[in-house]
Amino acid sequence: MAHNLKERIGKVFKNAAGVEKIVIVNTGIQDPNFLYITGFTSGLFEYSYLVMDEKGAKLFTSALEYETAVEQDAKGLDIIKIENRSSFVKMIKEEIEGSVVGINGAFLPYQIYKSIEKHKPGKIEDVSEAFLKARLVKDADEVARIRKAASITKWALMLIQKEFKEGMTEHQLAAKFDNLCSSMGSQGPSFRTIVCFGKDAALPHHFPDDTKLKYGDFVLIDAGCLVDNYASDMTRTFVFGREKATLKDYKEMDEMMKVVKDAQVRAIKAIRPGVKGKEIDKAARDYIEGFKDGKYKGTFIHSLGHSLGLEVHDGPGFSPREETVIKKDMVITVEPGIYINGFGGVRIEDDVLVTKDGALVL
Amino acid sequence: MAHNLKERIGKVFKNAAGVEKIVIVNTGIQDPNFLYITGFTSGLFEYSYLVMDEKGAKLFTSALEYETAVEQDAKGLDIIKIENRSSFVKMIKEEIEGSVVGINGAFLPYQIYKSIEKHKPGKIEDVSEAFLKARLVKDADEVARIRKAASITKWALMLIQKEFKEGMTEHQLAAKFDNLCSSMGSQGPSFRTIVCFGKDAALPHHFPDDTKLKYGDFVLIDAGCLVDNYASDMTRTFVFGREKATLKDYKEMDEMMKVVKDAQVRAIKAIRPGVKGKEIDKAARDYIEGFKDGKYKGTFIHSLGHSLGLEVHDGPGFSPREETVIKKDMVITVEPGIYINGFGGVRIEDDVLVTKDGALVL
Repeated sequence: MAHNLKERIGKVFKNAAGVEKIVIVNTGIQDPNFLYITGFTSGLFEYSYLVMDEKGAKLFTSALEYETAVEQDAKGLDIIKIENRSSFVKMIKEEIEGSVVGINGAFLPYQIYKSIEKHKPGKIEDVSEAFLKARLVKDADEVARIRKAASITKWALMLIQKEFKEGMTEHQLAAKFDNLCSSMGSQGPSFRTIVCFGKDAALPHHFPDDTKLKYGDFVLIDAGCLVDNYASDMTRTFVFGREKATLKDYKEMDEMMKVVKDAQVRAIKAIRPGVKGKEIDKAARDYIEGFKDGKYKGTFIHSLGHSLGLEVHDGPGFSPREETVIKKDMVITVEPGIYINGFGGVRIEDDVLVTKDGALVL
Repeated sequence: MAHNLKERIGKVFKNAAGVEKIVIVNTGIQDPNFLYITGFTSGLFEYSYLVMDEKGAKLFTSALEYETAVEQDAKGLDIIKIENRSSFVKMIKEEIEGSVVGINGAFLPYQIYKSIEKHKPGKIEDVSEAFLKARLVKDADEVARIRKAASITKWALMLIQKEFKEGMTEHQLAAKFDNLCSSMGSQGPSFRTIVCFGKDAALPHHFPDDTKLKYGDFVLIDAGCLVDNYASDMTRTFVFGREKATLKDYKEMDEMMKVVKDAQVRAIKAIRPGVKGKEIDKAARDYIEGFKDGKYKGTFIHSLGHSLGLEVHDGPGFSPREETVIKKDMVITVEPGIYINGFGGVRIEDDVLVTKDGALVL
């Protein structure tokens, strides 16, 4: 399925009234908006310039990647080979001078901003919000890519349980998990795979280290993969050898898992077009906070979830203050958690597609 | 081996005369300078602020990662938990107001730059060059991390040859390569693994696709891995089933491989403290350009190499115009290539540590 470049450009300009041109520049890292407009699945395009108006887009790129761009055959994209620095500067100046120019202020480094300023645009406007709004509601090509990424992660989170062994390290389990994903077609992790054993599970962004797996430990895995630039992001929490946990610990772990799962179900049920982000968060948070007279009060220390797409955090997060209204064809994560320092933590995270009357778990 | 935070801060401020404070802010991506100063190997620290003066550094981070920061015990780093948005804004204002503040203009997005401006610093200066200069010459902790990463990639590039099979796709080989690396302790690829079969090898930044491996094909693999945030970056080019290539093709392929290897040896021999980047490039480029009366003239379409470290392109590239003087303890790539559209390409890349009188291939 090919994406429609002109349709995507149209969505962006619709949210950027008065802007005549938009300039997107990669650094050593790709601006996600570069990938959104080009739909490219190959090439790095470091320091390449993408210049758009409402009708189409021009890509200025070096000999190093010119062929890689051409062969991807994006309809509506003119590809211009940069022959040398001075002709390139001249071309960009011609594109920009005197125009109202939009930039992605959430990504564009200060240095490149200053060099765009030198080309004497009529005005520079930060249109990062216009891109985020356009990207919030996914088109069919985007949903297809995310579904593939989600499917791989979901399978890997099931199959990985066979690999749990006493004494293995978090590092080792993370490597096994990444292998599983790439063997199923992931083009790489969408972020560094998080594996936490035991009390490490109380740290939401703990990176795998040499902690060894013991019977009765929590095993928390938070991971995602990339398919054609689109990300998945899921979490599962297990108890390894639960029969060997002490009875007291086991009861506590079991209760935490149930409360988090129930909170997630409540949040997913609350999702439908028209509700606000904060309402979804509230559905899960109120349940956790109110459980057994506030036993877990204050232990859910992050937002309920976030928009997912070209970036793992692809737009708004859904915190208790989030006013963004949920729309059909948004893809969001639902990830309540309970964290108890020194004991451990539970997080359960799924990716859901907002449908016309609810949510489809991917 | 622990890094010396104060020593690193000292190296940066030495190159940033007149600057009183330096502010580093992560986005969803980590500013490499954040990793340079903290030495952290765990945690994401999204939108965390690192504020430095010549004496030490303060990290402002959320409850989500506070514990992850504390447990990494970086000497000379004060860790401050952000309790809420307004107290955070107040604290940052207190740090910045009236001071000459340095930022990393090569990374800091325009949006965050504008928010720093609102805190009324005396002046804002782009100190990105000061960081690059400091990072150019590696300390012992950095060299140890890069060596580990290089060693994994080197082994993987040897072992992967056993996996070559007729009909396999570039995707499949890339997945096998990444698996090999992670099973040897890589914490992830340092960039998307490049695998090119046949004529795809003419495209330096081609991403693996469903192209199938045929007898007599070039197999070009350009890949690297991460160990504790530090990158390796190597390339090998093979011919698969060379006995089944046509004699004419084989002779051409063989010659390209020899010319590139000889060019690389010439460049490595040219490396020593005191020479300029462009001289190393010249050693390889002149050989390729002059071979057989210019048969390969214009086919080496990129720079000879680049500095390597926390980023794959960790400072200057070594182009025919590069004036940077090579110093002891720099780590650089040496990667000449020949690319012939429609036929294929050869690139050979190694990572070398500059020693007091030459270069050590890692």
